[in-house]
Amino acid sequence: MGEISFAAVTSQGEGYMLVVRPQCTVDHAKRRDKVQVMLIHEDRLFPAEPVTRKIAKALYEHVRCLPIISPHGHIQAEWFARNEPFPNPAKLFVQPDHYIYRMLYSQGVSLEELEIGESELKDARKVWRIFASHYYLFRGTPTRIWLDYVFQELFGQKEPLSDKTADLYFDAISEKLQTPEFLPRALYERFHLEVLTTTDSPLDSLAHHRAIRESNWKGRILPTFRPDPVVDPEFQGFAGSVVKLGEMTGEDTYDWTGYLNALRKARARFRELGCTATDHGHPSARTADLSAAEACVLFRQVITGEADAIQEELFRAHMLTEMARMSLEDGLVMQIHPGSVRNHNRKLYEQYGRDVGADIPSPTNYVDALRPLLDRFGNERELTIILFTLDESTYSRELAPLAGHYPCLRLGPPWWFHDSPEGMMRFRERATETAGFYNTVGFNDDTRAFFSIPGRHDVARRVDCSFLAKLVVEHSLTEDEAFEVAHDLTYGLAKQAYRL
Amino acid sequence: MGEISFAAVTSQGEGYMLVVRPQCTVDHAKRRDKVQVMLIHEDRLFPAEPVTRKIAKALYEHVRCLPIISPHGHIQAEWFARNEPFPNPAKLFVQPDHYIYRMLYSQGVSLEELEIGESELKDARKVWRIFASHYYLFRGTPTRIWLDYVFQELFGQKEPLSDKTADLYFDAISEKLQTPEFLPRALYERFHLEVLTTTDSPLDSLAHHRAIRESNWKGRILPTFRPDPVVDPEFQGFAGSVVKLGEMTGEDTYDWTGYLNALRKARARFRELGCTATDHGHPSARTADLSAAEACVLFRQVITGEADAIQEELFRAHMLTEMARMSLEDGLVMQIHPGSVRNHNRKLYEQYGRDVGADIPSPTNYVDALRPLLDRFGNERELTIILFTLDESTYSRELAPLAGHYPCLRLGPPWWFHDSPEGMMRFRERATETAGFYNTVGFNDDTRAFFSIPGRHDVARRVDCSFLAKLVVEHSLTEDEAFEVAHDLTYGLAKQAYRL
Amino acid sequence: MGEISFAAVTSQGEGYMLVVRPQCTVDHAKRRDKVQVMLIHEDRLFPAEPVTRKIAKALYEHVRCLPIISPHGHIQAEWFARNEPFPNPAKLFVQPDHYIYRMLYSQGVSLEELEIGESELKDARKVWRIFASHYYLFRGTPTRIWLDYVFQELFGQKEPLSDKTADLYFDAISEKLQTPEFLPRALYERFHLEVLTTTDSPLDSLAHHRAIRESNWKGRILPTFRPDPVVDPEFQGFAGSVVKLGEMTGEDTYDWTGYLNALRKARARFRELGCTATDHGHPSARTADLSAAEACVLFRQVITGEADAIQEELFRAHMLTEMARMSLEDGLVMQIHPGSVRNHNRKLYEQYGRDVGADIPSPTNYVDALRPLLDRFGNERELTIILFTLDESTYSRELAPLAGHYPCLRLGPPWWFHDSPEGMMRFRERATETAGFYNTVGFNDDTRAFFSIPGRHDVARRVDCSFLAKLVVEHSLTEDEAFEVAHDLTYGLAKQAYRL
Repeated sequence: MGEISFAAVTSQGEGYMLVVRPQCTVDHAKRRDKVQVMLIHEDRLFPAEPVTRKIAKALYEHVRCLPIISPHGHIQAEWFARNEPFPNPAKLFVQPDHYIYRMLYSQGVSLEELEIGESELKDARKVWRIFASHYYLFRGTPTRIWLDYVFQELFGQKEPLSDKTADLYFDAISEKLQTPEFLPRALYERFHLEVLTTTDSPLDSLAHHRAIRESNWKGRILPTFRPDPVVDPEFQGFAGSVVKLGEMTGEDTYDWTGYLNALRKARARFRELGCTATDHGHPSARTADLSAAEACVLFRQVITGEADAIQEELFRAHMLTEMARMSLEDGLVMQIHPGSVRNHNRKLYEQYGRDVGADIPSPTNYVDALRPLLDRFGNERELTIILFTLDESTYSRELAPLAGHYPCLRLGPPWWFHDSPEGMMRFRERATETAGFYNTVGFNDDTRAFFSIPGRHDVARRVDCSFLAKLVVEHSLTEDEAFEVAHDLTYGLAKQAYRL
Repeated sequence: MGEISFAAVTSQGEGYMLVVRPQCTVDHAKRRDKVQVMLIHEDRLFPAEPVTRKIAKALYEHVRCLPIISPHGHIQAEWFARNEPFPNPAKLFVQPDHYIYRMLYSQGVSLEELEIGESELKDARKVWRIFASHYYLFRGTPTRIWLDYVFQELFGQKEPLSDKTADLYFDAISEKLQTPEFLPRALYERFHLEVLTTTDSPLDSLAHHRAIRESNWKGRILPTFRPDPVVDPEFQGFAGSVVKLGEMTGEDTYDWTGYLNALRKARARFRELGCTATDHGHPSARTADLSAAEACVLFRQVITGEADAIQEELFRAHMLTEMARMSLEDGLVMQIHPGSVRNHNRKLYEQYGRDVGADIPSPTNYVDALRPLLDRFGNERELTIILFTLDESTYSRELAPLAGHYPCLRLGPPWWFHDSPEGMMRFRERATETAGFYNTVGFNDDTRAFFSIPGRHDVARRVDCSFLAKLVVEHSLTEDEAFEVAHDLTYGLAKQAYRL
Repeated sequence: MGEISFAAVTSQGEGYMLVVRPQCTVDHAKRRDKVQVMLIHEDRLFPAEPVTRKIAKALYEHVRCLPIISPHGHIQAEWFARNEPFPNPAKLFVQPDHYIYRMLYSQGVSLEELEIGESELKDARKVWRIFASHYYLFRGTPTRIWLDYVFQELFGQKEPLSDKTADLYFDAISEKLQTPEFLPRALYERFHLEVLTTTDSPLDSLAHHRAIRESNWKGRILPTFRPDPVVDPEFQGFAGSVVKLGEMTGEDTYDWTGYLNALRKARARFRELGCTATDHGHPSARTADLSAAEACVLFRQVITGEADAIQEELFRAHMLTEMARMSLEDGLVMQIHPGSVRNHNRKLYEQYGRDVGADIPSPTNYVDALRPLLDRFGNERELTIILFTLDESTYSRELAPLAGHYPCLRLGPPWWFHDSPEGMMRFRERATETAGFYNTVGFNDDTRAFFSIPGRHDVARRVDCSFLAKLVVEHSLTEDEAFEVAHDLTYGLAKQAYRL
C-alpha cells in the first residue's frame, strides 16, 4: 500500500480489452485522447451473464424493428405541419431539453451562458462548446445513452462528444439538418413511428394538427387533451383561460354547468382530430367526489379568486372525477401524472418561467387520494385511467396493488427522473409481482426532444427484454411466453391501452 | 430499421434452445400451440451466473427436504378435523384465493362470473375455464409459480394451463381429489408439515382444533389468537363480539377489568390447545401506553359507541400494549401486521363483504408508532414481537434498525404483496445489513390456499439460498456459514421465534 | 421428500469447493470446527459474473492504493496528540462501537455484561469472549466485513473469530497494540491517510488539534465545526452551552447579534486549525428564512427556555440558513445529516446517555424542507451543501433531483445504517441516473472506530468499482471513462467537495 508500481492487467473478455494500466497513480488525463471506435455497442444494456444476454438479445431482435407507438410526448405539431429544417445543434439539443441544462446548471454553468430563454441564439457554437466540454457530467445517466444513440445512428459520429470534438459535431450536425432526410416528416418515417401524440391546452387552436390532417402526409400526429390551464386554479392565468375557453366554445364558463359543457365541447374538438387521451399534471393524486351543489359553490369561489389553497386543491381533486365522468361518456383515456413540485427554484421561475429543470418530485399518496374517484367509477370496465408516479416507493406499496385490482386502472411506465435503465428495471421488479404485465401500458417517451425518441424506445425495449430474459433464465417464464410478452410490452399494450 | 428480415438466432445455452425466429413480425399466436415438457424447472429461481447457481443449488439441496414449519396461515382446522375430500378445482383454487380473482377482476372479469361468494358453485367447470383462459395474466407473478408447482408436483400436469387444457386439468384434478392420497391429513404428511397454525377469533369455539387433538392423528394444527374482532372498535360487530366474549369467559366485559380478564381467559383457552402466538392486524402500527384510569375511560367511550375515529385508533394502540403485557405473563409471541387499508373498494365491500382482494397497502410508520409500547416493554428479553410490513421503504429505514437494537423485536418475512421472489430478495438485501439473519424468523406462508403451501416454502428456500449464494460467491460469507444460515432460515429460526 | 439420503454434490467452481454434504439433516454443528484459510478474499464484493469481475478488479487495482481522504468521522484528536498505545481489544473494538453492541443487545446480551459506559473495564477478556461467541450474529452485515479486514490485515488472524478463538485473538491483538507499529501516528501512515477530520463542538478547546499542529508530525488531523450543542435548543445543556460560547468568544450570546458573532468567531477559530466544513445533525431537514426581527424574537424565546417544540424546530430550521450565510462568507462546506430519531430507547438513554445504538431513522422530507434555504442561497455557486439521508426512498425521489439542479447541492455517500455494500449499490443505482457522478462527493467513513477506516474505504472502493464495471460490461460507459470515474469517486471528488 502506498507504493507506486505498474502491473500488466491485460485480459480479454467478450469484447473487452483491459490494457496495461498504472496502479496507484492519480494522473489519467491522457486517457481522454483515446479514440473510441463506436459510441454505442450492439449489446448495450443487456445483462453480463452470457446465457441471459443471449436470451435478451433474441427477445430484443424480436421487437427491435416494431413500429414506435409514442402515446405521450411533448413534440410540437408545428414541425410536422411546416416540415422545415430543424435549427442548429445548440438550439435543437441544448435549449429545449431541461434534462441537459439542469445538469450543467447543477455544476455551475449559468443559464445565461447557455442562452436559455432566448428565441434566437447569439452564439450557437459557443453554447454547443460549453455543452460539449461538460458532456462527461452525463456519465451514468440516460441522457448520455439517448444522445450517443442520436449522435451515432443519426449523425454518424464515432468519437465521443468533448471539447475536442465540439466543432466537428457542430458542423456535421448543422450540415445534415439542412438535408431533406432530416426534415421532420422524413424523420417520422425513418424513426418508424406509427403514432406520435402531442400535449395540448384546451385553448390550443390545434391549427397545426388540422394542417397535418389536411395535407397529403399520412403521419399520425394526434393531440392529447391536457386541461391543467383551465382546471387548476393555481395555473398561471387560470381565470383568463377559463374566460377564453368560454369564448372558444360559446359557453358561459362563469357558470358551473357552462364550464362543464365547455370542457365537453373542447374534448369533442380534440377527438375530431384523433385525440384518444387526456392528461392531468396535478401536484397530488387527490380526488374528490362532491355533490353537484357543492361543486357549484366551490367553482364559484375558485372562479372569483376567493378560494384558498385548500379549496383550490379540492377543486383540482373534484375535477379529476368530473374528467373521469366525461371519459366514460366520450371514451378518452385518462392519464394522471401527480407528485411534481413545479418551479421549485424561485429565482429561476421569476426570471425564466416554467419548465427550466427545477421541478422536484415529492412523496405521493395514492391509496387514500384516489379513493373518492374509485368509489364512484373504479369498477367501470369501460374506463381506463393510467397512473404515473415520481415516488418509486409507491410501485409495490400502492400502485401495483391498486392496478392489480381495479378494472379501470393501469400503470404507466417509469416517468421523467425514472425513465432510465435502472428505473425501468425497478418498475418491472416491483410492479410485476402484483400487477403482472397486462396491467401496464408499454412505454412512453414523454419527451420534448424529437431526435431522442428512437433511442428512448430502444432503451425501453432492451431493458424489458433483459427483465424477461432474467425470468426465462430463472425459469419463471418460458421462452415462448417471453417472446409474446416482449411484443406486448413494446407494441400491443400501448396500442390497446391508449385505444390507438 | 423498418425492414423485415429473418435471422437465424439459433443458440444453445444451459438448457435453453433459442429457435430460429422471424424478426419484426407481430404475429406470435402460433407459439401458444407448442407443448412444454415440464411446468417447473429444477433450477428455477436460482441466479443465472453458473458458479452462484451451483452454490445456490447445493445450499438448497441441504434444506429442500426439511420439514415445513408454517407458523402463520389461514387454513381451516375443520378440514383436518373432518378429513373429507376437497371440493372441485374451481372451488378449491379460484374461489378462496383473492390473489387469483383480484387479478382476473382487474382485467374485466366480474366476480359474478367467478361465482365469488356462492357457497355452492352452479357451474364449477365454467368458472375454471374462465380462470384457465386468463392464466397468462399471472406471468411474472408468484401466483403462477405456486400454481405451476401444485399442478405439476401434486397433479402431474405437464402442459401449461390455458383455455386449451382447461378441461384436461379440471378432470384430472377432480379425479385425484377423490382419492385417499388427497385427503387433508394425507396431504399434511405428504407436504412434510411439522406444524401448521390457523388464525382464529377469540370467539371461535376451537371445536375443530379440539377434535383434532382428540383424534388419533398426530398432525400439529395449532390455533393463533387474533383478537381484532374484540379489540378493534371499527371491526364489524365489535360491540356484540365483546358481549359474546364476556359470555364465553364468564366475565363482565362491559367493565375494563372484566374485559382484560376475559382476554386473559381467552388466551389461556387458546394456549391449552397449543397456541403459541397472537396476531394483530391493525390499520397502523400505532401503540399507546395509557394509565389504567385513562384506559378505563377510553374503554367506556369505545364500548358505548361514543368514541370517534381518533379515540378508536387510540384504543387499538393501547390494546397492543395490553397484549404485550399479557404476552409477558403467558409467553405468547406477538405478531403485528399493520398498514393495510381494508375493503378499499366500497362497492365490492357492500356486495361481498371482507377479503375480496380489495385491501391496499398504505405508508406505515414504525419509529414513532411503536415507541410507547417499546418504552414500556422494549427491553424485555422474554417478550417476542414479530413485525411485518406492507411498506417496503421501512425495511432499511425503520424495521431493521429497530430489530437490530430492541431485544423483544424480530422481523417477519415479506408479507402478502411482497411474498414473491423479488420481494424476498429485497427484504434480505435491505434488512440483513442492519438486522443480520438472527433477528428474522424464517418464512410464513400466510395462505388460505392449503395446496400452495409446499410451493410457497419452496420459493422461500430457493430465494434465501440464492441470496446466501451471492454472499458466498462475493466472499462475504463462507460456505460453511451459508449452510448453517440456510438451515436456520428454513427451519431453526421459525421454530425458535414462534416457540414451537 | 421426507427421506434422508446422502448425495455427492461435489463440484468445483472458481475457488469454491462444495464438499459432500448430507441432505435433509438438521445437524450441522460439526462444520464450525473447519478451519478457514483466510478471513477475507482478494475478490470479495466483486460481482460473480467473470467478465464483470475482471473489469471490477482492474478498476479496483487502479484505485486500491490511493491515499484515504476521510472528511467526516468521529475519531479523537487526542489519540494523535498523545500518540500512546491503544487499550485492550474489548475497549478498542467493543466498547466504543455501537454497531457492535446494538446487535449483541438485540439478541439478549445486556450492556452491563459488556461493561458499556465503564471508563475502565473490570474484565476485558470476559467482554471479548462474549463478543466472540456472538460473532456469528454479524453474518451478512458490513461490521463483519470491516472487522475481518482488521483482524487479518492488521493483526494477521486467519481463523474466524468465535468462542474457540476468542483468547487467541485477545492475546494476539493485545500484544500487537503495545508495539510502536500500532501507535496512532504510525497507523495513520500505514493506513495511507492523507487527511482525517474529527467532529467537534464549538465549545471544544481544540487543544489536541493545536498540539498536533505544534508537534513535528505531518499528519493532517482537522476539526469539523458541529454547532448542534449551541444551535439545537433540545440538545442537553443548550442554554449553558450558549453561555459558555459567549465566554469563549467575548460576545454577549444572550443577544441575537452577539450570538451570531460568537458563532462567527468560533468558526474562525476552527478555520485557523484547518477546518473546512461544518456538520449539522438535526432531527429533520427543515430550513427557514426568517427576517432579522423575527429571528431576534424567536432567539429570545429559545434562550429563555420559553419556546415550545414547534418554535425550537423553527429555530433549528432558521439556524441552517444562518449557517449557510456564514458559509458563503467564510467558505466552510456545510453538511446536513437529518432524519435520526436520537435516543429512541428511553430506559437506555436514562441509564447510559447518548449514542448507545438506539438511534432510529425516520421518514425525511427534503423537497419542502430545504426550500426556504434554497430560495435564499440555492443558486450560489460558491456555496457547497452536502446532503445525507437515512431515508433511502429519497435518493431517487428528492435528493438526486435536487442535487442534479441546484449549484450549491451535493450528495453525501450512504450514511450509517446504509454504509454497506448493498446500501452503497442502491445509492449509485438510484442517484446516478439523475445526479450523475459529479454531484456526489466520494466516500465518508463516519466512524468512531479508527482501526476500521481502511476496511471501510476498501469496501467503498470495491463497490464503486463493481458498479462501474456493470456500466462498462453493459456498454453504458467506456473503460477509459470508468477508470477516470473510479479515481474521482475514490479521491478527487472528496478532496474537491470538502476543499481539502
